[in-house]
Amino acid sequence: MRIHVQNPAGETVFPITPAQWQAAIARSPDMADLQVSFAHDEAGYAAAMQEAELVVTWTREVLARFGQGQLKAGRDFAPKLKTIFCTSAGLDRLAPFAWLPDDVALLNNRGAHANKAGEFGIMALLMLANHIPHFAERQREGAWSPRFASVLAGRTVVVVGLGSLGGAVAGRAKQFGMKVIGVRHTAAPHESCDEVVAQSDIDTVLPRADYLVLACPLTPQTQGLMDARRFGLLRQGARLVNMGRGGLWDQEALCDALDAGRLGGVVTDVTTPEPLPKDHRLWRTPGLFITPHMSSDDPETYNDNSLDILFANLRATRAGKPMPNRVLPEKGY
Amino acid sequence: MRIHVQNPAGETVFPITPAQWQAAIARSPDMADLQVSFAHDEAGYAAAMQEAELVVTWTREVLARFGQGQLKAGRDFAPKLKTIFCTSAGLDRLAPFAWLPDDVALLNNRGAHANKAGEFGIMALLMLANHIPHFAERQREGAWSPRFASVLAGRTVVVVGLGSLGGAVAGRAKQFGMKVIGVRHTAAPHESCDEVVAQSDIDTVLPRADYLVLACPLTPQTQGLMDARRFGLLRQGARLVNMGRGGLWDQEALCDALDAGRLGGVVTDVTTPEPLPKDHRLWRTPGLFITPHMSSDDPETYNDNSLDILFANLRATRAGKPMPNRVLPEKGY
Repeated sequence: MRIHVQNPAGETVFPITPAQWQAAIARSPDMADLQVSFAHDEAGYAAAMQEAELVVTWTREVLARFGQGQLKAGRDFAPKLKTIFCTSAGLDRLAPFAWLPDDVALLNNRGAHANKAGEFGIMALLMLANHIPHFAERQREGAWSPRFASVLAGRTVVVVGLGSLGGAVAGRAKQFGMKVIGVRHTAAPHESCDEVVAQSDIDTVLPRADYLVLACPLTPQTQGLMDARRFGLLRQGARLVNMGRGGLWDQEALCDALDAGRLGGVVTDVTTPEPLPKDHRLWRTPGLFITPHMSSDDPETYNDNSLDILFANLRATRAGKPMPNRVLPEKGY
Repeated sequence: MRIHVQNPAGETVFPITPAQWQAAIARSPDMADLQVSFAHDEAGYAAAMQEAELVVTWTREVLARFGQGQLKAGRDFAPKLKTIFCTSAGLDRLAPFAWLPDDVALLNNRGAHANKAGEFGIMALLMLANHIPHFAERQREGAWSPRFASVLAGRTVVVVGLGSLGGAVAGRAKQFGMKVIGVRHTAAPHESCDEVVAQSDIDTVLPRADYLVLACPLTPQTQGLMDARRFGLLRQGARLVNMGRGGLWDQEALCDALDAGRLGGVVTDVTTPEPLPKDHRLWRTPGLFITPHMSSDDPETYNDNSLDILFANLRATRAGKPMPNRVLPEKGY
């Protein structure tokens, strides 16, 4: 099989290198027969895609080349293409997926982010327990203003989304003695959760949350999930983490709840839009700490993990099984 | 035995209450015969201390009443006193201990802080791994400035001090897959450390530290432990946490190292002096995050833990054993 790796022009942190490919093949010797090419420019891309059956690239390259309204041009550009592997877990920017031909499989790299995301998630919970957003604001003022804090053990965290991000956060929270309530599509049990409820029952668990973590995909069903009404279901002083997408909550309602003193603090790694403009209300809402969409991407392991996931999917195909990372347009992720 | 609990006047967060005492007795029924009194005012204090053999109080009360130069007055105030139990682990403010009569035992509450300190310590390491001091500064400017981060697993942390604070941090670091090197008085092994070296050999391990955590008592031996020379032994980009005392390092040399871009970030819970004055250089040194001496004190568990520790010491005395929390003036803690 011919595979082409197209790195975005100018990308310096996350390009997939031939050395990383070789190391991944060494971990998966059954993939040694794959033929691979690499490019970061348009000429190399165009030449390689005349023959490639599978392309490894970034969401933004897929969007620009194959996305909405460009199916025909994409087909001419890549006549033999059967599989697109995006090195991202959340492909909401590519939705809706009407542009995707039925005979082309779109894969995400769900699973590549788990370790890093788990560490970020427990850090965010600990930061909220320890009033870190508050102390960041006091430091600006040069104000020594003690405020004490309790441990996470015994507190309840509601984790929305139990994919690789949410599952990793739930596992860390368990390790710190928290009571973990998961929320996902269906109420199927999860090894790191004390309870799991279906998405449709989220309103029943929000009033029990000392902490709430959003770690689910952005889909038409989860867009604006946390609106003013649901913020109102939370306990006074509840603390919130968003590692999913800014669109999962109503940012104005979030800021209103913080300004009204209803929430005990927020750490968000995602905003709408990104990058967040300099004068945006989020930057200056007290109690809210912003990290710039870096929670789950570890440059030292990201490409290795992504390639291992790609090979696991190819192995599944060879065995006649469904590819575990195939995006299902009807589910939206 | 008559015990008096003297709470500082006006203290609202950490006073020891009769209800906490009763709950502690319920956990230690063998202590039910103790006679206890409580006060927060001077009159109640003076009356109770005519009879009390043991006083439970704060370091600052001990300093004001019995400390340097006031031994005689203290003796008149508390003629039957045999034991002072301070609800603090670090009693450096009471040193040197020449004021302490040989027949009075001074106890600290070492051990009360472990859970909380362990959580703070791993939070601080995760914050440094994730560039949180940097992002706090970018948020002030409204600047979306991504910078990626790797996991703690595989990194080396040097923990100076393996008492209850340092031991708890070492345990959490191990749980996150770090390589843990301990530094303490002697090189005796520790369950959460891959290696332990003696304090006198600290220079041999500083060059190996990706992360350095200070969690030792402040004594004449540890005063200014991290000076300009030792900062120079650290790797480019090393990241530092101080949970002990501000006097453990040379703050000017620390700020110089940060300003020169030699360090990857600092989280400190302690400063010299405390409270830190508004115009102090520490507040505005880039890459340095300050919390106001709250890392290890959990108001929900602090007094319960302290009373359990007091009772364990009384139990040891009754069994004819040394009291484990007795401060040894010659060691300085």
